[in-house]
Amino acid sequence: MTAEQAGAAQRSATQGSAGQAYEPAMRRALELAARGPATGANPQVGCVLLDATGMIVAEGWHRGAGSAHAEVDALSKSDGAVGLTAVVTLEPCNHTGRTGPCSDALIAAGIARVVYAVSDPGLRSAGGAEQLRSAGVEVVSGVLTPDATEFQRAWLVSTALGRPFVTVKWASTLDGRAAAADRSSQWITGTASRQRVHEQRAASDAILVGTGTVLADDPSLTARGDGGELMDDQPLPIVIGERHIPGDARLWDHPRGVLETGSRNLAEILEWLFGQGIRRAFVEGGPTLSSAFVAAGLVDEYLIYLAPKLLGGNQLAIGDIGVTTIGEARELRITSVEHLGNDILLSARPITVARPITEAGH
Amino acid sequence: MTAEQAGAAQRSATQGSAGQAYEPAMRRALELAARGPATGANPQVGCVLLDATGMIVAEGWHRGAGSAHAEVDALSKSDGAVGLTAVVTLEPCNHTGRTGPCSDALIAAGIARVVYAVSDPGLRSAGGAEQLRSAGVEVVSGVLTPDATEFQRAWLVSTALGRPFVTVKWASTLDGRAAAADRSSQWITGTASRQRVHEQRAASDAILVGTGTVLADDPSLTARGDGGELMDDQPLPIVIGERHIPGDARLWDHPRGVLETGSRNLAEILEWLFGQGIRRAFVEGGPTLSSAFVAAGLVDEYLIYLAPKLLGGNQLAIGDIGVTTIGEARELRITSVEHLGNDILLSARPITVARPITEAGH
Repeated sequence: MTAEQAGAAQRSATQGSAGQAYEPAMRRALELAARGPATGANPQVGCVLLDATGMIVAEGWHRGAGSAHAEVDALSKSDGAVGLTAVVTLEPCNHTGRTGPCSDALIAAGIARVVYAVSDPGLRSAGGAEQLRSAGVEVVSGVLTPDATEFQRAWLVSTALGRPFVTVKWASTLDGRAAAADRSSQWITGTASRQRVHEQRAASDAILVGTGTVLADDPSLTARGDGGELMDDQPLPIVIGERHIPGDARLWDHPRGVLETGSRNLAEILEWLFGQGIRRAFVEGGPTLSSAFVAAGLVDEYLIYLAPKLLGGNQLAIGDIGVTTIGEARELRITSVEHLGNDILLSARPITVARPITEAGH
Repeated sequence: MTAEQAGAAQRSATQGSAGQAYEPAMRRALELAARGPATGANPQVGCVLLDATGMIVAEGWHRGAGSAHAEVDALSKSDGAVGLTAVVTLEPCNHTGRTGPCSDALIAAGIARVVYAVSDPGLRSAGGAEQLRSAGVEVVSGVLTPDATEFQRAWLVSTALGRPFVTVKWASTLDGRAAAADRSSQWITGTASRQRVHEQRAASDAILVGTGTVLADDPSLTARGDGGELMDDQPLPIVIGERHIPGDARLWDHPRGVLETGSRNLAEILEWLFGQGIRRAFVEGGPTLSSAFVAAGLVDEYLIYLAPKLLGGNQLAIGDIGVTTIGEARELRITSVEHLGNDILLSARPITVARPITEAGH
């Protein structure tokens, strides 16, 4: 299931004119959700509590694994919640993890109505809406579903598929080359593009590179700021391939350490990473690894940096992806075009439906 | 000289506060200029005549080779021009061709002041401003020069270089492929892109293709409308290469006929085409011909259609362009990004300076 399909399904759900009245409160809940950490295994969730007149009386958001869920955070800031309406970006969970189920907390607090945007796709955590209804709480779903789905796309797709959300990034010239014939490539893109890549690394749980890239380029794969300083958030570097990387590789100095998979089985690796709590994987290449992800149908998002240059030659950003005839082309949808200095950043996603790695993967 | 350099040079010229007052009239003159034919050997020129209060009393524009120049057209619509100001998009010509020099016509009519945007880059036709000044006419240059330069870029570059303005167009996937591994390529781009290509053909004097493309794809290279009907303007198809094309090739049915060069010497071909009055050459490939134009530094404008697909494989839109290391990359500047259906059209131009083919080429 893609996040878009999830959105379409939700739009056909229960939202009526009642739902529209909650859109301003839901926008606020989405703002609150964005305050939480974008990485890690848990979703970003925001919640506001409304009184009978629709006034916001408490706000809450989730601050990451192990801390209170957004609903519980909001309840903790309210002086009694009997009869209030809770507006929350994600269906309240029905699952006991490090914290108890939010559905129970809402019921116990006497909440009269729960309004949410997106259904919980987690097999273990779903069912909150049903639990609430059973307890006599009114439930309104489908409010601002497209916005909330887009906001949480990586987490939703990852949770639905049982593997990390996979972003493949490459930089090429306008003729699709990642390097010149002599393999020189520094720098194809400009400083604005390179800085953006550092931000994208920091927003990921893991960076995936092939052994070939480590051997050829000896990258550090840290997320650094304008002045070269390390950012607070550093993704875990993961080297994919059967070869060991050299003992003097820069990667060994990475603040998160480095993980060698010893394998090129992408589906297995992703499934294992999901089990380690990794939800956002940033594939930085090289061409062999990126092409393998494309060929395996394991890409959820493409970030393609295009530099206004031409190189010709045989150093391609994308190699064999298992396509032999035009009808088999991997079809994407371009979702944004952004100017970064003289470069262009195209964001795209597959138009085909991704499938879970294993049907019982989570 | 590039059109941009021409513009920069002009901006450093005589425009003062006097020039700014003529900008509205120059905008009108540019609108009038656009009514003339965009193809052919002659420039698009517009002219308005102003009285002492700045009111427009007559308008003119050039309708193509053999017809009155814009200034003469405007004069013919004015009931006497003594003491009037002529605002014209291009420096009045000083050349007798099929019509007489405009500078003489303006002087004879008693025009008091001539305001123009862009200097005439033609060796034979330049000198009009000097001629006017010698006759005691006040001359103001540099009004809206950047706008007028961009509007007339193809003609200005062509005239300055003594060869057609060369537009190279290709369509590729996001990974730079023009076809799948089995050479199938219909259709990489969508209908909106294909329709735009027909419009671009109609705005060109000639379409250039390599023999390989004719042999492989048997294209018709006509400019057609939405319903498949032939457009009024058809460019001349020119086949570049040493081989003959087959007697049953579709190109033989082209309304303009077809021209075989029997040569791959691009500089010689362009110079010859310039002599035939061809100012705008549209290079439609295939990859070998496009790459040869890039390698030779003979491209003034790139139109790159990017389809949201990936293909992998070895059918590249651009092949060898003589670049071996990153420092030799052909550097471009992206001038526009346009969404056409699901595709993207990037327009770009070289940042390096094009040189005349022969210093005495015209």
